[in-house]
Amino acid sequence: MTVSSILTSSTPLRPGSTLGIVGGGQLGRMIALAAANYGLKVHVFAPEADSPAFDVSAARTIAAYDDVAALTRFAASVDVVTYEFENIPAAAAEALAAKAPLHPNASALATTQDRLTEKTFITGLGIETAPFRAVDTAEDLTRALAEIGRPAVLKTRRFGYDGKGQRMIRAEGDLDAAAILAEFGGAPCILEGFVPFEAEVSVVAARGIDGSFAAYEPCANEHRNHILAVTRVPAPGLAPQTEAAALGMARRIAEALDYVGVLAVEMFLVPQADGPARVVVNEIAPRVHNSGHWTIEGAVTSQFAQHVRAVSGWPLGGTARTGGLAVTMHNLIGAEADDWSRLLAEGGAHLHLYGKGEARPGRKMGHVTRLLPNV
Amino acid sequence: MTVSSILTSSTPLRPGSTLGIVGGGQLGRMIALAAANYGLKVHVFAPEADSPAFDVSAARTIAAYDDVAALTRFAASVDVVTYEFENIPAAAAEALAAKAPLHPNASALATTQDRLTEKTFITGLGIETAPFRAVDTAEDLTRALAEIGRPAVLKTRRFGYDGKGQRMIRAEGDLDAAAILAEFGGAPCILEGFVPFEAEVSVVAARGIDGSFAAYEPCANEHRNHILAVTRVPAPGLAPQTEAAALGMARRIAEALDYVGVLAVEMFLVPQADGPARVVVNEIAPRVHNSGHWTIEGAVTSQFAQHVRAVSGWPLGGTARTGGLAVTMHNLIGAEADDWSRLLAEGGAHLHLYGKGEARPGRKMGHVTRLLPNV
Repeated sequence: MTVSSILTSSTPLRPGSTLGIVGGGQLGRMIALAAANYGLKVHVFAPEADSPAFDVSAARTIAAYDDVAALTRFAASVDVVTYEFENIPAAAAEALAAKAPLHPNASALATTQDRLTEKTFITGLGIETAPFRAVDTAEDLTRALAEIGRPAVLKTRRFGYDGKGQRMIRAEGDLDAAAILAEFGGAPCILEGFVPFEAEVSVVAARGIDGSFAAYEPCANEHRNHILAVTRVPAPGLAPQTEAAALGMARRIAEALDYVGVLAVEMFLVPQADGPARVVVNEIAPRVHNSGHWTIEGAVTSQFAQHVRAVSGWPLGGTARTGGLAVTMHNLIGAEADDWSRLLAEGGAHLHLYGKGEARPGRKMGHVTRLLPNV
Repeated sequence: MTVSSILTSSTPLRPGSTLGIVGGGQLGRMIALAAANYGLKVHVFAPEADSPAFDVSAARTIAAYDDVAALTRFAASVDVVTYEFENIPAAAAEALAAKAPLHPNASALATTQDRLTEKTFITGLGIETAPFRAVDTAEDLTRALAEIGRPAVLKTRRFGYDGKGQRMIRAEGDLDAAAILAEFGGAPCILEGFVPFEAEVSVVAARGIDGSFAAYEPCANEHRNHILAVTRVPAPGLAPQTEAAALGMARRIAEALDYVGVLAVEMFLVPQADGPARVVVNEIAPRVHNSGHWTIEGAVTSQFAQHVRAVSGWPLGGTARTGGLAVTMHNLIGAEADDWSRLLAEGGAHLHLYGKGEARPGRKMGHVTRLLPNV
């Protein structure tokens, strides 16, 4: 057996094996907790010495994401590698995949970490996205605005999250394309047209090494200041046809990426004059996702346990809601986490705190999940 | 404020504080996972370098339980100390309590780690136990057998668990008291009379620093080879009066010990000719307990989260069953854990593995919990 056939082998991990996680934030921490529950050891790779995931892992590597030697040593010491965020440099993914199976694969990373590549991929599957154009120059921007219309949003193609690296271009008023583009400091950009949506939902789903697929039902998401604030399951007023369309899109995306692990597909619901809402895909997160945190208590298998199952080559778990109860998940952003004491005293509220030191504004400090009779 | 008033202070821990756990087995591991979920850091003290709890803790001390210097350093580095097992030497408890609040307190430890002290304490509360006598000599044993009758069980007063340190004395046949006692190598013993029980139940409950009390409903336990095999909730056929009596006893015991944390009270149910079963207390575990593992998925608050809440000075969480579903918990003992792959594939089965290396006979390797419609 050659090395490369070992690395792409789908032999299930045995309990006692080591799962490598790249990234040390709350997502890595919650993956680590789920892995521990299955008797796996966890090795976390992250640049910051105070990474929340370090506190719950058996082994830690503190190194930069471009430290190929450290990445290579890390991957050689674990049985499988996964990650908690999509902005892993291509060279890092290559170094990891050379030493251990990397799930999800490097191509899923490459496709989703660039908004232009991502939207081109999605529309290539016959799935609708917002209209978009590549923008590298002021001329590109002027032409794109003429074609797509206003309002529109100019975004960096890479490294954006929670509204960072974005600028709204409003419907009214003059605009100076060169000045706008200058704000982005020469980064390659994408202009995205406006989608007149009535609601935002996401589908959190998993695909196993054997090609099996399991999705949670779509959840409704409410953002404040570009950061997820509330998730509700079931999504209020979601028509069965719209739900089926959303789940089908997530499945086609996962299959086209030959995806292994949990992914989240964010979608807009656009009201139609006659018939159920139309689904427009916004973006793909090739990882566990904030809008799936409700599954920890709210579903038979949490998204973190599901991700561990998938990347370990194990069968996927059930995705039904626990006892058929409805679920809400509220993020605790910045100082909202100061409310921990009241939340601990609230009957039935499931408080999660991520062990982060400082409650800076906009920082995700924890979340709280509530299960309610489904009325 | 003097040092001793600081140490007995009931100021709630803030998230980010460090919980010290003495003992590194699966109970310590599951307490650590629950603490992490609340944003606490965990420091585990255990003698074995491969302790399962080390893999999920931010800090580790590898040292013996009689290493007072190491215990002192450990306790000085954390904000509160708890433990996962009751056989902590009195000197160790004293060293810990001198440097940090110790929950449950040293007197709860002293009372429950000696079967004679424990049963004397319980009967002193007006709660029935099996008849018992202290046995130090062959004469003691002969007299005790004459008073209590046969069958009976001779046990070491200290350090017994899962049937270790016990010997059945059958109803029939001759016996040589000196020879029997010689098997115990001079350890102080207790003779316990036979209780004609129809079922074994336990009450897992918690008491907060403020004196609040919250119990899970009694669960029915089935042992094989003296090791817990199955827990069922609700306990089949438990009469409401018997349940109320069991819960009342757990509460009186917790209050009499000025207990803080989760405890388990194991009980026998003895059928009565007329009326509901009588409750006879078997023993007290001053810690989270195997018969409470069902609460991880089966109850609003797991016993581990509840213990963390109690020792942190936080309000206790709800103890109702999740969605009102019935729950079974099966231990995976020794080679039973080799079945992990089939259990992962079983819909609705919640598999837990403890990350132990070798599946030795009798070793608790994991457990599996199933939630079922309550019929």
